[in-house]
Amino acid sequence: MMQAVQVARRLAPRFAARAADHDREGTFPADDFRDLREAGLFGLMVPRELGGLGATFGEYAAVATELARGNGATALVFNMHASVTGALGAVTEELAEALGMPNEALAARDRLLRAAADGSWYAVAMSERGAGARLSRLSTVYEPVDGGWRIKGSKTFCSGAGHADGYLVAARSAGDPSVVSQFLVPAGDGLAVEETWDSLGMRSTSSHDLHLDVTAPADRLLGGVEGLALVVAQLMPHWLVASYAAVYVGVARAAIDAAAEHLNARDLGGLPAVRARLGRADAAVAAADLVVAEAARRVDEAPGDAETNRWVWRAKLLAGTTAADVAASVLEAAGTAATRRGHPLERLYRDARCGSLHPATSDVCADWLGIAVLGGDPDRDGSAPRW
Amino acid sequence: MMQAVQVARRLAPRFAARAADHDREGTFPADDFRDLREAGLFGLMVPRELGGLGATFGEYAAVATELARGNGATALVFNMHASVTGALGAVTEELAEALGMPNEALAARDRLLRAAADGSWYAVAMSERGAGARLSRLSTVYEPVDGGWRIKGSKTFCSGAGHADGYLVAARSAGDPSVVSQFLVPAGDGLAVEETWDSLGMRSTSSHDLHLDVTAPADRLLGGVEGLALVVAQLMPHWLVASYAAVYVGVARAAIDAAAEHLNARDLGGLPAVRARLGRADAAVAAADLVVAEAARRVDEAPGDAETNRWVWRAKLLAGTTAADVAASVLEAAGTAATRRGHPLERLYRDARCGSLHPATSDVCADWLGIAVLGGDPDRDGSAPRW
Amino acid sequence: MMQAVQVARRLAPRFAARAADHDREGTFPADDFRDLREAGLFGLMVPRELGGLGATFGEYAAVATELARGNGATALVFNMHASVTGALGAVTEELAEALGMPNEALAARDRLLRAAADGSWYAVAMSERGAGARLSRLSTVYEPVDGGWRIKGSKTFCSGAGHADGYLVAARSAGDPSVVSQFLVPAGDGLAVEETWDSLGMRSTSSHDLHLDVTAPADRLLGGVEGLALVVAQLMPHWLVASYAAVYVGVARAAIDAAAEHLNARDLGGLPAVRARLGRADAAVAAADLVVAEAARRVDEAPGDAETNRWVWRAKLLAGTTAADVAASVLEAAGTAATRRGHPLERLYRDARCGSLHPATSDVCADWLGIAVLGGDPDRDGSAPRW
Amino acid sequence: MMQAVQVARRLAPRFAARAADHDREGTFPADDFRDLREAGLFGLMVPRELGGLGATFGEYAAVATELARGNGATALVFNMHASVTGALGAVTEELAEALGMPNEALAARDRLLRAAADGSWYAVAMSERGAGARLSRLSTVYEPVDGGWRIKGSKTFCSGAGHADGYLVAARSAGDPSVVSQFLVPAGDGLAVEETWDSLGMRSTSSHDLHLDVTAPADRLLGGVEGLALVVAQLMPHWLVASYAAVYVGVARAAIDAAAEHLNARDLGGLPAVRARLGRADAAVAAADLVVAEAARRVDEAPGDAETNRWVWRAKLLAGTTAADVAASVLEAAGTAATRRGHPLERLYRDARCGSLHPATSDVCADWLGIAVLGGDPDRDGSAPRW
Repeated sequence: MMQAVQVARRLAPRFAARAADHDREGTFPADDFRDLREAGLFGLMVPRELGGLGATFGEYAAVATELARGNGATALVFNMHASVTGALGAVTEELAEALGMPNEALAARDRLLRAAADGSWYAVAMSERGAGARLSRLSTVYEPVDGGWRIKGSKTFCSGAGHADGYLVAARSAGDPSVVSQFLVPAGDGLAVEETWDSLGMRSTSSHDLHLDVTAPADRLLGGVEGLALVVAQLMPHWLVASYAAVYVGVARAAIDAAAEHLNARDLGGLPAVRARLGRADAAVAAADLVVAEAARRVDEAPGDAETNRWVWRAKLLAGTTAADVAASVLEAAGTAATRRGHPLERLYRDARCGSLHPATSDVCADWLGIAVLGGDPDRDGSAPRW
Repeated sequence: MMQAVQVARRLAPRFAARAADHDREGTFPADDFRDLREAGLFGLMVPRELGGLGATFGEYAAVATELARGNGATALVFNMHASVTGALGAVTEELAEALGMPNEALAARDRLLRAAADGSWYAVAMSERGAGARLSRLSTVYEPVDGGWRIKGSKTFCSGAGHADGYLVAARSAGDPSVVSQFLVPAGDGLAVEETWDSLGMRSTSSHDLHLDVTAPADRLLGGVEGLALVVAQLMPHWLVASYAAVYVGVARAAIDAAAEHLNARDLGGLPAVRARLGRADAAVAAADLVVAEAARRVDEAPGDAETNRWVWRAKLLAGTTAADVAASVLEAAGTAATRRGHPLERLYRDARCGSLHPATSDVCADWLGIAVLGGDPDRDGSAPRW
Repeated sequence: MMQAVQVARRLAPRFAARAADHDREGTFPADDFRDLREAGLFGLMVPRELGGLGATFGEYAAVATELARGNGATALVFNMHASVTGALGAVTEELAEALGMPNEALAARDRLLRAAADGSWYAVAMSERGAGARLSRLSTVYEPVDGGWRIKGSKTFCSGAGHADGYLVAARSAGDPSVVSQFLVPAGDGLAVEETWDSLGMRSTSSHDLHLDVTAPADRLLGGVEGLALVVAQLMPHWLVASYAAVYVGVARAAIDAAAEHLNARDLGGLPAVRARLGRADAAVAAADLVVAEAARRVDEAPGDAETNRWVWRAKLLAGTTAADVAASVLEAAGTAATRRGHPLERLYRDARCGSLHPATSDVCADWLGIAVLGGDPDRDGSAPRW
Repeated sequence: MMQAVQVARRLAPRFAARAADHDREGTFPADDFRDLREAGLFGLMVPRELGGLGATFGEYAAVATELARGNGATALVFNMHASVTGALGAVTEELAEALGMPNEALAARDRLLRAAADGSWYAVAMSERGAGARLSRLSTVYEPVDGGWRIKGSKTFCSGAGHADGYLVAARSAGDPSVVSQFLVPAGDGLAVEETWDSLGMRSTSSHDLHLDVTAPADRLLGGVEGLALVVAQLMPHWLVASYAAVYVGVARAAIDAAAEHLNARDLGGLPAVRARLGRADAAVAAADLVVAEAARRVDEAPGDAETNRWVWRAKLLAGTTAADVAASVLEAAGTAATRRGHPLERLYRDARCGSLHPATSDVCADWLGIAVLGGDPDRDGSAPRW
């Protein structure tokens, strides 16, 4: 599996070479995704028995960091696919039984994972305008119809919209609004992309709006039972929180590398202020990298444990703040010339700013961790709704 | 004169309303400059006896901050004009005599200032690729010809290129390379703009390259004597350092205002983390504002004094670092929605990052001030060439 | 009045020479106070017509900063005296009338101020264990008795306890607990000092506990009317918040001076990292100094105005955080040798840490200012009781 | 070996209970050292075949962190002993041969290590006034005499002076000043302690001056060959740099724990600003802890490798700056009450400040790392002598 990291490391320079264009135009890095498919990385989180690479979360985090050294936006979209396949792959038979999942639901799950191993990838269509990612406020609704599930509604921030082979969609039952279910809706008719994504950073994630008026096949209800959505969200906080962290560590490291290359090319490495900035940046990123790896390792060993979750939140906090601080500091080390559009640092500075802003923001993370330090239950005692 | 500040305050919302478009397209805010002309602000630094407003440096700093609350890029370009007219206006008869300026040079100077009061504005074409703003490394050359001065060379970072009525150009004598002189070259034939400016922030300053192959009228040699350039640079460090500071204070204040408006509109002002960020930002910007005003006050009272210069460097350091820090923090307070292109905070965040990067960078300022604290002569003992 | 600043500047080196001993032993700087008396500074805030210097708040702030460059602890205790005399001196005849103060109360007030001009000084005994400085929770009680007011209770953090000539004491009426009054209790029998003060920094303020079981003369009820205490507290927030600020600016400046002297003596001023630390520290302290001066100026011009109060809170926030940050950074610049007890930086580092901790702490200040930025009423909307 | 960590964890509360007294009086924690002896921890770094616990560097780092959670000063002195025994224990037979060490030198080395396993401990007497820890400037001299080596000179910063059973002393040959050798001088006559240690933090390390006029037995020349000192220093940078790091992580964690206990006892854990401070502190310390562990792990696996050394410097940088920042922030969260002498936070705040100041200071570390980022050789290209 270290092999997947090697593959990611090999792909990164290609991604980096295309990143400036995609950033400027706000285009989706379809070429990067072609490379990912050909390299077999869509099967990264798919169990080996279903044809995948069977990566652990720790291995995934390392892959994500390497991809992000090439293009953070590509890594972020890939993160969504890895989250979906990882969460699906993590449903053991015991868990399935405990959740009351029918047998055919596991079979349907297997089909989705095999398809991923064969080169399909999935996006996530969870957020809605006004509701954010909070499942408790969704307005997208579904109802059973002949041949499956009719789903109607609009999603925002759907990274990779228009490019994925399927979309993880959360919706509320038209019959019983207290029931939220999740579907893996295939790409095709009934889905319309509205190009709304035009952002400071991570511009090529194509996180556009997605309008749904579609019938999903019956077997695309995840878990095979309505109402499993909230359960999954609570079981898998690391997918909602931590995988971003690995990406932003990669972005931060890319910023240091770009600054060093820029400064060496101009023979400015002798300036003490420059060295001080790079040295402090290097230590900070190395630390964030370890924290992400530790969080990932614990997710593999003891998913959902209180101590595991603490590392997950630490990882989210540190990766986001470190990326933003490091990019700002090394940009200053590099100087005005590096602020020209097309220069890698110009893009990385904007990309890096976004890590702390993804929910949970750094302020929310700090609050969560502070409650834990004080012996409280951060999932209950926080001052603000978190999802 | 407080009247000019009122005028600037009145113009700022108009500038703000246009800022997003100019930023996105990288277009010059010609409409803002039309407003400035109509408001009579091109004569801000022109002595009253020559038809201007005769503003002090302190008054100018206040005007610059207000304009920057509307559009930092407009204020930065205006700063160049104010620098040129301010420096010209500051040449007293005593100084002129001391410098050996012939009488007709003062008369020529007066014509330039009157023209400004009548609605002309001047840009600065000082920097060159490879030489930065260091006069000691210029490659643009001039020689006397029939009808004036033949000037050949290429300049970079010429803010407002293609839009100004005249350009302050530094060049080296073809006959004696140790002699550097300055010219106020009229717009027109012989000047070619190459659109190279495409930057992270302050995108609408149009700080393009300017290629010169032009004959300037004889009276456009500033001071009327060759070789005055370096002298002026040393007499007027505040124009090279401090006027940027006023602009970045305005940008920082605009960021706070935009964040407050954004948060109030979403009813998020009750979040403690949001309030903490805004409160600390407010104090920091208020402090930077006072430092700029104090530096400006001392420039008026005791230009060139050691203590005055110290305040000038403090102003440059604090305005730049404060703007960048404040914009980053309040953007985090405002959250992801404010990173959408077109949102004022998205632009202000990029604009604010540039203050510390303009020479002298914050690291150079800190070094300069540290030497002063230790009782050294910072203009001599610094580790790096500063210009 | 600039004269008083000169006097303070002259006294500071003497204070500095004694500071190490007082700090080590935790002894009160009685010698400094002898100097202050002889220099006439106890009358600083006493109106000229009552024999004092009639200083403005702005002048007082400048004096406090200068004194603190010598010994922050001395300046802090002096601050209490200045607060008391300043608040008493600020009661105009109009205000007295509005508050319903009887004529003899103004006469009594005048006697206290004349005594100060003649060499008496007053301490403040406001805080109580458990209640902090919140008047709403006091447990010290008073009742009218023959010959005056019987006062019983215990106070904490009474700076200068055992050394002052009088103590401003807040107490609650035994008859009606909703009534809080303030007394200027003369030193002497009935007051017992318990030596509880033993602190990280500002060790020589002797901010011990004061136990009262005493009868104060009838004319020592401030204002001559029971129940004026809360009113005064609300009219004079600057005395409760801002005068600390001036002291901590002086402490921060002293830290820079001590570091520069230390480094020059060891010929270490050439190290770039050292210069960067001193330079950034210098700019930060210069800024905090201006903010304090601006707050003080506005207190003189428009006391109690919303904008004045904002400057007061900014001053408190910036002075405290700047002092702590600056002292920590320049101590690192100076290195291990400066951590030896007896070295000025060792003491200043500890002293400087206390500024943000005095109520209102920096976190409370940030919250207050954040509410103001958002257009709220920070005196009402804050999340925590502030006094 | 995880057992040693358990032992350390068990001892820490005892150390913590005594720390305030030792800190106040500046006394050596002889009781802590009695506990360490009884627990067998003096043999921590002694190979198992010589009766010790044979700990790896990684295990040692974990022990040091746990001890420091009790008393940082105790852990710092223990660090010296662990450094000496660790370096001695790391000399393999191959290395001994390569260095030209005679057989009896290895036997002598074994005796020293066995003694440690039996309950002796060693201090380090390396620094000299004016020379710091730089071997190139020592003025302590030695010469061969009947019965061993006559050593004369004075050392500073000898932690545990007067309490250790032996002292690692570096001295210069009287015959050939270019030759620097190291001796393990037994406690006893000829050694005089001058009580000079009186410091801001880490007050109970008793890092006094040590005056030597003593004859060390012949077999106490380390390595059995003159001139090995510099070699050892270069082979073992981690002992000079990184073990401090583990100690300061423990101090930082102790500060968080003390703040949480303080705040919970006062029911202040609900304040958002408090939680934000504790949460960010927790993440920072967790990160520093991982970096120290990673550095230690690599020291065990690939000592002296370029990448190993990079982690060692990162660990030193982050542990020092994190400890100081965290202690300052959580002290502010805890508030004024925690600044009382005797309160754990008051001491931890002072102790924590010292980590960045130990050579290599954080500024030197940042410079070193910056050179490495730029591809240079930081051991050669640094601007300042580092030892």
